[in-house]
Order: sequence, then C-alpha cells, then structure tokens
Amino acid sequence: MVNYPNAKRASLSKSPILKKKAVNFANRGMSFETLINDSNTYYLSREIAVIHKKPTPVQIVKVDYPRRSRAKIVEAYFRQASTTDYSGVYKGHYIDFEAKETRQTTSMPLKNFHAHQIDHMASVVKQGGICFVLLHFSSLKETYLLPAEPLISFYQIDQGGKSMPLSYIREHGFEIPLQSFPSVPYLDVVDRHLIGGN
Amino acid sequence: MVNYPNAKRASLSKSPILKKKAVNFANRGMSFETLINDSNTYYLSREIAVIHKKPTPVQIVKVDYPRRSRAKIVEAYFRQASTTDYSGVYKGHYIDFEAKETRQTTSMPLKNFHAHQIDHMASVVKQGGICFVLLHFSSLKETYLLPAEPLISFYQIDQGGKSMPLSYIREHGFEIPLQSFPSVPYLDVVDRHLIGGN
Repeated sequence: MVNYPNAKRASLSKSPILKKKAVNFANRGMSFETLINDSNTYYLSREIAVIHKKPTPVQIVKVDYPRRSRAKIVEAYFRQASTTDYSGVYKGHYIDFEAKETRQTTSMPLKNFHAHQIDHMASVVKQGGICFVLLHFSSLKETYLLPAEPLISFYQIDQGGKSMPLSYIREHGFEIPLQSFPSVPYLDVVDRHLIGGN
Repeated sequence: MVNYPNAKRASLSKSPILKKKAVNFANRGMSFETLINDSNTYYLSREIAVIHKKPTPVQIVKVDYPRRSRAKIVEAYFRQASTTDYSGVYKGHYIDFEAKETRQTTSMPLKNFHAHQIDHMASVVKQGGICFVLLHFSSLKETYLLPAEPLISFYQIDQGGKSMPLSYIREHGFEIPLQSFPSVPYLDVVDRHLIGGN
C-alpha cells in the first residue's frame, strides 16, 4: 500500500485550487461556480441528473517519481479549454454549458468566450445536444440561462465587440431565480424551455 | 488582442502528454487510446458526433507566476477520476464510456475500474445515457464494446474478483472490427445495438 501522509489526503478534496482566493486564476466567477457545483451535487444525489465540471485542462511537461511516493508533477501549464466546462446527462439528453460571472450591470464581457468554445457549442447544437450558458450578474443579483443559439448568433455578428448587452440576454434568455436547494435551479428552465414536449 | 508567442501556441495542441512515450503514466493503453482519440476526431470532423476525452484530473498545489510569462504549475498530483474518460453527444444521445486495454488473452483485469466509476456508470444508465466500455485485447487483436449494464452486474457479483473472462465479454458485448477511418468504429455498434429504433 502506498502511504498517504495527511498533507496529501487533504489534497484529494475536490477542486482545491478554488478554495485559495488569493490565487489569481480562480478569482473570477468563483462564488457562482461554487453555487453551480453545489447544484450539480444536489441533482446527482437526488438522481435528477448527472452533470459534472470537467477537470481543468493542464499540459504536463515534467513528472518526478520520488521513491515510495506517488508521481509528482513538477512542471505543467494551464491550457485553454477547447470545450465548455460542464457536461452530463439529464433524462437521456446531453447537457453542455459554460458559466460566466460579471460585476458589470449592463452587459456581459465576451472576452472569456473563446472562438473554439463557440465552435464546440455550435457542434453540440447540430448534434441535438442541449447547450447554453449560465450568466450571473453579481451586482444585480440576476442570473440567466442563455441558449447557445442566440449566443452564437451574437458572437458571429459581433466578433469585434467586447460585450453582450443585458437587454439582449433578457430578450433571448431566461432568468433563473436563485434559491436554496439547489442554488441555481437551471434544470427548471431546461425543462420548461429547452426540452421539447416535456 | 493578447499576443500569443509560438511557445503558447504549441501548447494548445491536444493531449501533449500522450505524445511522450517515455512518460510512465501514459504507457499503458496508450496506443488504443490514440486510436479512440483519432476516431473521435474523425467523428467530429465529419459532424457525426461530438465526443471528447476529459482532461486528466490533476490536483494543483503550487503555482508560480514568473514575470512576463504565464502561470507555471510547480507542484501537482494526479487524482483518481470520478467519472469515465470519454463523453459527448451523438444524435442527441448522451454518450459516456471508458477504454481499457490488456495483453492478456483470456480475461480483462478489473483493477483499473474504480468503484466510483462503476457508480458513475450506474447513474448515467439510470438517467437514460448510453454508457459502455471499450475493451481491447492487444495480443488477440480483438476489441469489444461491453454495455455498462453487464459490466456493473459482473462488478457487483464479483467484487472480490480480479478479472472479467473474455467469454463473459463475448457473451454480453459486441466485437468491433478495427479498420482505417475511423480506427475504432464504435458508433456502428451504438447505432445497431444501443439506440432503440434507429
């Protein structure tokens, strides 16, 4: 048996980097992400849906193999995600989405959506998957589910632009009232507006 | 616009660790994994399906921020996957699978399937997803798709056991003849045996 000292044990908890507020790359959108992860845990435990956040894509360059200990990655870099962050299955349907948070009050910055993520969303829609983004305006305390189609349209028309107006999101999306269990009940919107005939 | 030097560009290529044959952790099952990844690239490019391998789950402990350079992970560890390696969408259906390879000729070792992966598969099946394992016997040059249900049944009955007999796989699974494009045409089996009414 491999011996795991306590330090390592602690490290096995989920997404430990998200708990370090001081770390730059995890700051943006952290609390909203936590709410979504909690909602997914709720959905999973109630057998309502199986939806997971994908691991952070990391490019591993160098690994050490200390004796009597597990492999240690000593050089690696963050990679840009080529797909969205969340995917899973709900009532047989493939679910695929990305989540973004902003403190702005009139628009959502688009700089965090990459062209290949938009391409991925278009491919998913074409394949009959249910694809959307969850957009959280933290100052306004408003959260929206915007289906992939209007996002893709806006992105294609407005490639030079830097942000998507809240008015556009309100027109083409659906507000999600935040609550307790689950915090972000986005599957209610999926049920009501994105699944045909349910 | 952000300026991407070439070094960064190169790092955006998919799964760079898989190209380093010398790295121990990537050796086992590598060639079969490559065939599956190539098949998924084929399916994606032909707009047949959108199926990706999830990033390797890594627990990040320490990140350096060298000046004028991107974040460098200097301490991280491999985590055990809590889900399967591959997921995506095919004709609207959620697809979820794991791939394993062995040189043995009479059975598939089960040690690489973890209890929480089996749990995940059971949840996916319950949620109406299409879930299976691709099993490759490299010495025999035989490849099978085994649906999650018989795998779960075997695992539950035989928790003390160490391997699943090839005869069981032949009885409950479907052979996939390897070919050129795509190398592992597993969606043919999905079409023929796992999707009702298609």
